[in-house]
Amino acid sequence: MITVSIVNVTSYTGLELLRLLAQHPQFTVTSVTARIVCLPHAAAAQTAITLLEKGTKVVDLSADFRIHDASVYEEWYKHTHPAPLLLETAVYGLSERYRNQIKETNLVANPGCHATAAILGLIPALATGLIDPDIIIDSKTGISGAGRSPSFTTHYSEANEDVSAYSLTGHRHLPEITQELEAAAAVGGHPVNGNLRVTFIPHLIPMTRGILATCYADLKLHASQGVPTTAEMRALYQEYYANEPFINVVDQPPHTKWTYGSNHCFIHPVVDVRTKRLIVISCLDNLVKGASGQAVQNANLLYGLPETSGLASLAVFP
Amino acid sequence: MITVSIVNVTSYTGLELLRLLAQHPQFTVTSVTARIVCLPHAAAAQTAITLLEKGTKVVDLSADFRIHDASVYEEWYKHTHPAPLLLETAVYGLSERYRNQIKETNLVANPGCHATAAILGLIPALATGLIDPDIIIDSKTGISGAGRSPSFTTHYSEANEDVSAYSLTGHRHLPEITQELEAAAAVGGHPVNGNLRVTFIPHLIPMTRGILATCYADLKLHASQGVPTTAEMRALYQEYYANEPFINVVDQPPHTKWTYGSNHCFIHPVVDVRTKRLIVISCLDNLVKGASGQAVQNANLLYGLPETSGLASLAVFP
Amino acid sequence: MITVSIVNVTSYTGLELLRLLAQHPQFTVTSVTARIVCLPHAAAAQTAITLLEKGTKVVDLSADFRIHDASVYEEWYKHTHPAPLLLETAVYGLSERYRNQIKETNLVANPGCHATAAILGLIPALATGLIDPDIIIDSKTGISGAGRSPSFTTHYSEANEDVSAYSLTGHRHLPEITQELEAAAAVGGHPVNGNLRVTFIPHLIPMTRGILATCYADLKLHASQGVPTTAEMRALYQEYYANEPFINVVDQPPHTKWTYGSNHCFIHPVVDVRTKRLIVISCLDNLVKGASGQAVQNANLLYGLPETSGLASLAVFP
Amino acid sequence: MITVSIVNVTSYTGLELLRLLAQHPQFTVTSVTARIVCLPHAAAAQTAITLLEKGTKVVDLSADFRIHDASVYEEWYKHTHPAPLLLETAVYGLSERYRNQIKETNLVANPGCHATAAILGLIPALATGLIDPDIIIDSKTGISGAGRSPSFTTHYSEANEDVSAYSLTGHRHLPEITQELEAAAAVGGHPVNGNLRVTFIPHLIPMTRGILATCYADLKLHASQGVPTTAEMRALYQEYYANEPFINVVDQPPHTKWTYGSNHCFIHPVVDVRTKRLIVISCLDNLVKGASGQAVQNANLLYGLPETSGLASLAVFP
Repeated sequence: MITVSIVNVTSYTGLELLRLLAQHPQFTVTSVTARIVCLPHAAAAQTAITLLEKGTKVVDLSADFRIHDASVYEEWYKHTHPAPLLLETAVYGLSERYRNQIKETNLVANPGCHATAAILGLIPALATGLIDPDIIIDSKTGISGAGRSPSFTTHYSEANEDVSAYSLTGHRHLPEITQELEAAAAVGGHPVNGNLRVTFIPHLIPMTRGILATCYADLKLHASQGVPTTAEMRALYQEYYANEPFINVVDQPPHTKWTYGSNHCFIHPVVDVRTKRLIVISCLDNLVKGASGQAVQNANLLYGLPETSGLASLAVFP
Repeated sequence: MITVSIVNVTSYTGLELLRLLAQHPQFTVTSVTARIVCLPHAAAAQTAITLLEKGTKVVDLSADFRIHDASVYEEWYKHTHPAPLLLETAVYGLSERYRNQIKETNLVANPGCHATAAILGLIPALATGLIDPDIIIDSKTGISGAGRSPSFTTHYSEANEDVSAYSLTGHRHLPEITQELEAAAAVGGHPVNGNLRVTFIPHLIPMTRGILATCYADLKLHASQGVPTTAEMRALYQEYYANEPFINVVDQPPHTKWTYGSNHCFIHPVVDVRTKRLIVISCLDNLVKGASGQAVQNANLLYGLPETSGLASLAVFP
Repeated sequence: MITVSIVNVTSYTGLELLRLLAQHPQFTVTSVTARIVCLPHAAAAQTAITLLEKGTKVVDLSADFRIHDASVYEEWYKHTHPAPLLLETAVYGLSERYRNQIKETNLVANPGCHATAAILGLIPALATGLIDPDIIIDSKTGISGAGRSPSFTTHYSEANEDVSAYSLTGHRHLPEITQELEAAAAVGGHPVNGNLRVTFIPHLIPMTRGILATCYADLKLHASQGVPTTAEMRALYQEYYANEPFINVVDQPPHTKWTYGSNHCFIHPVVDVRTKRLIVISCLDNLVKGASGQAVQNANLLYGLPETSGLASLAVFP
Repeated sequence: MITVSIVNVTSYTGLELLRLLAQHPQFTVTSVTARIVCLPHAAAAQTAITLLEKGTKVVDLSADFRIHDASVYEEWYKHTHPAPLLLETAVYGLSERYRNQIKETNLVANPGCHATAAILGLIPALATGLIDPDIIIDSKTGISGAGRSPSFTTHYSEANEDVSAYSLTGHRHLPEITQELEAAAAVGGHPVNGNLRVTFIPHLIPMTRGILATCYADLKLHASQGVPTTAEMRALYQEYYANEPFINVVDQPPHTKWTYGSNHCFIHPVVDVRTKRLIVISCLDNLVKGASGQAVQNANLLYGLPETSGLASLAVFP
C-alpha cells in the first residue's frame, strides 16, 4: 500500500478525497506524509515546497502551480508567486491531456473545476481547427464549489431558489482556460497565434454538486466544405476521446445528475445549422472530476497505477 | 369593476393570474367572459376567435399570435395557423415596446418567458447600434416553466440537484426573439438587414420560479471610438428604460430571487474589456413578468388603467 | 396614515415586514418611530422600553415579553429579564386568542413561529377537554427560521438534501407553548392542573419558508361516549375557528406551500381510530403568520384597524 | 462470481441495485436469472414463485412476503395474497434481526424503508422493556421513496419548497412495523401482549433521498428506579448494536445527509427528562439501507458472503 495524507481534510475537496481513497485498492490515507494538498492558494504552495523537499510526490488542488507564467498568476491572484522556480516542474493535471508528463513529474497542479469542464468540451474542436478562436463559456456550478466557509452567498435562504452570475469582470479560472485552449490548438497544428478571445461567465445554481459548461464558438467555414453535421462533429469528438475511460461523448444533452459522485465527464457537441455555430455541453461533478477525483486520477499516474484505480464507482442516481 | 375570466385557470399561469387579479383594484374575476387565455397553442386561438367575435378583449398567453408571419409559425409549431387573419390585429404584448399599439387593439399576444427576458436585455444595445447582430442567449429557467403536467423531465427526483440544456436544435421562443430583435434594431435606426444570427439555448434549473438570461454579443468597433465602459453602457440602458416602472437596470449581477412573485425585470449590462464583448444579464419571474404579470400589465393597457395596477407588490424574499 | 418604523430591518422578519407594510393601506414605514421590533432577545427589550416611555405602541418580535413568569424566561434564555415590570402590560400576541387584550395594550409580544403553529393546532381540542394533557409536537421548519447570519447549519451544501432534528434537550419555544396550552385548557373549563406534558422536537427541512407541526395526543375516553370521528373532530375545529379570517380547517393534509407568503394557517385534525389518538397537522409561513404577518395583524388590532388590513394577498403558488 | 439479475431494473431501487452490485466483488449482474425483484406488489410475488420453482434464491423488494399473516396483508394491500404458502418460508429481511434465518432460506422479504428506520430505532428499548408499548413514529422521507412514475405529488413545482403529511388514515408500512416491534419485545422477554399502539405518520420532504424517523414513547417507570439518563440509554443502544457494521449509535442528532448513498443507519436516543419520554432519531438512505443496500446485505447472507461485501463505500458528502 502507498501511504497518502490529505492536507486540510475538512474542506469539501478533502472530505471527497477521503471518500474516494477509502475505496482505493493501493492508496491508504495516513496522517504522516502529505501528498494531496487541499489548501487555499499560496498556503498550498508553502506546504508543497516542504513536501517536495522531503522527496514526496504532491498533487496540489490549489491554483498555485496551474499557470505557467508567474506574472499572469500574480495578476489574477493578487500576490507574489510563492514558488516560481517550481513552475517548470509542475504539470497541469488535466489527466487526459498530460498523462505522460504527469507520470514523469513529482508536482501536479490539479485543474480548476470550471476549467476542467470547459477545456474538455472545447479542445477536440480547437485541436482540429474546426472553430474560430472566439469562444463563449457559460458555466453553471453547484454551491459546494464555493467551499465550506459559511457566507452570505452560500447561506441557504439566499442561495435556494436562485440563479445568479458572478465574477463578471473576470473569474480566476480564465487564465488557465486560455493557457490550455491555446496549447491544445497549437499541439493540434492549428495555433491561434494570440487571437484567442474567451468570455467565461460562471453562474451559481441551487444544487450542491455539478458543473455544466455551455460553450459557444463559430465554425470555421472553408470554401470547399459545408458546415459539418452534428453527427460528424460527434464522431470527431468520439474519436478524439476514444480511449478515455472517464470521457463520454453522448448524443443527447447530458445532465449533471449523471455525474453525481463519479469521475465521469459527459460531452455533447451540437452544430447549430442556422448560425453555423458549434455548441458544446460539458458536465461533471465539481468535487470529483472537477477536483478530488481528478486528483486521484493524477496520483494513480504519479505512481504508475491503473488510471481508473479507486474511481470505478457509478454515479449516485437519482 | 371590469369583469375578467381566465380560461384554463388550473394551469400555473392561470393560478398566477388569479393571485394577481385578487389584488387588482379594477379587475374582478368571474367565470362568464373570457379575456385572458391560458390554453396550449392552437386551442387558445380557437377560444380567442370566439371571444373576439363577441367583442371581448383578449390577452392570449399562448404563442398563437406572437409571430407575424404565419409560415414561420407553422414551421416552428408544426400545424396550420388556426387564425391567420387575426395576425394583423394582434399586437406582440411586450408592454415596454408596444404600449401604444396595445391600447388600440383587442388582441394581445403575450410574449414567451425566455423571450421577454432576452429581448428586454438586448434591445437597448441593438436599437442604439452598439452591438453586432451575432448574439448568443444562454437562458436558465425554473421548472414551473415546463407547466403543470407531470412528466419525467419535471419529476422531482430527476430534476432536483440537476442542470441540463434542452431544445438544442431550436426552441420555439427563437422566432419571436428574432422577430423582436430585428424590429428593435430597425426602429432604432440600425437595421440588421437579415444578418441577425441568434443562438438561444435554454437550461432547466432546480428551482420553481425564475428566468435568468445571459446574453453575449460583440461590440461594434468604430474607428474613432474606443470600447464603451460598463458605466457608460449602464447609463445608456438606464436612459433607455428611464420611465419603465418594471425594468431595473442595476450595477451588480441580479438574482432571480429578487423577482420572486413580482413583475420586475432586473438588467445588468457589463462590458468585457478583454474581448470587447457586451454581456447582459436579464432576470425575471417566469410566471409574472414572463407570463401572468405581463398579461395583467397588458390588460391594464387594453382598458386604459394605470399600467402598474395590481402589480405593485414586492418580491417575496427570501 | 400611521407611521411605522422597523428596528433591525435587514433581518428576514424585518424585510418581510417591509414587504407586507408596502401593501398596507394605513401604515407607512418611516425611519423615525419604532413600533415593530426585530431584534434578538434582550436587545429588543431595551429598545421596547425606550419606545414605550415615549408613548409609542410596540410589537416586539423577540421572546422577551412572551413568558409571563420572569423566572421561567431566565431559565430558558439564560439571562436576567431585562424589564420584568413590563410583563404585566405585555400581551401574548396570538391574535386569535387575545385580540381583545391586544386592543387595550401598548406592548404586544409576538409569538414564536413553531409556537404559533402548534398552539393553533392544539387549543380547540384542549379547550373542549377532548384530549389528555400528554402531547407530542413534531415540528418541521424551513431554514429561514434560523435567521440571516451565515453559519454551518444554514450553509447551503450542508442544509440542502438533509433533514435533522435539533434542540432535543429543549427548544426555547417550549415554555410559551406550555403556558398557552395551559391557559387555553383553563379558559375552556378543562384545566390541566399542572399535568401538562409536552414534548416538542423541531426539525430543519431543506426549504426556505414554511412550518408544519404534527401534533399527537391521546383522546380522552369517556365511559358513555365512543371515540369521535375525524368528521366530528373537524366540525368541532371548524366551529372553534368559524370567524377567524386566517385559520382554515381543511379536510385533507395541508401543504406548507399553500401558505407561501400569506398570513394563513391550515389545520387538519384526524382521529386515528386504531390507537384512539388525535393527530393535528398545522402549517403556516414561518415569516408571515409565524412572525411578520402576525405582527401586522397585531398592529392592526393595536390601532383599531380591520384585522386583515394589508394581509389579503394570496399565497404564491407554486 | 455469482450471477444476479434484477427484475424491473429501471425503477429507482433497480438502478440503485445496479450501482451497488457494480462494486460488489462476488455478484455479477446478468439478464438471465432473477434474484432480486423490484416489482410492484402482487406482480413481484408472481415472479418470485416462478424463480423459486427454478431453485433460484430471491430477495423480494415488494411487500408481498413481509407480513406473516395473509389476512393482514389482504386488509392493507386490498387484494388476495398471491402466494400464501410461501409466507412460512419467507424471512423478513431486516438483516440485523434475522441474519441466521436469512442464511437458511431462499426467499427474503426486504423491509419497507420507513419500517427499517423505525424498527431499528425502537427495538433496543422494546426488547429491554424500557418503554411502554404506546409509540408514535413521525417519519420524514425524500421524494424518491414515491418511485419513478411521474405524478402530481412528485411534480417538481408542487413538491419543491413544501412539506406535507400523507397516509394519515394508515400507511402500508404500519403492519410490518407492528409485527416486528411485537416480535422484538417478545424475544427480549418483555412481550406487549396485544397492547402495542403505534401511530405512524409519514411526511414528504423536498429532497431526493433520505428517511429520518423521530420515535416517541413513554419510559416505563419502575418504583425502585429513576428515569435513565440519555447517556445510559445511549450505552444500552450501543451495546445492543455493538457488532453491527451498519448501525451507528451516535451522541448528537444525526443528519440524513450522513447516509447519502451508503448502507449506514444512524440512531440517536435521547431521554426527555421533563416528560419522562424516550425520543429516538433514526435515519438512513431510503434507497440503500431502506431498499437496495439492505437487499445486497441480505443477498450476501443468502450466499454466505461477508455481510458487508459491496457495501463499504462511504456516504457522498456534501
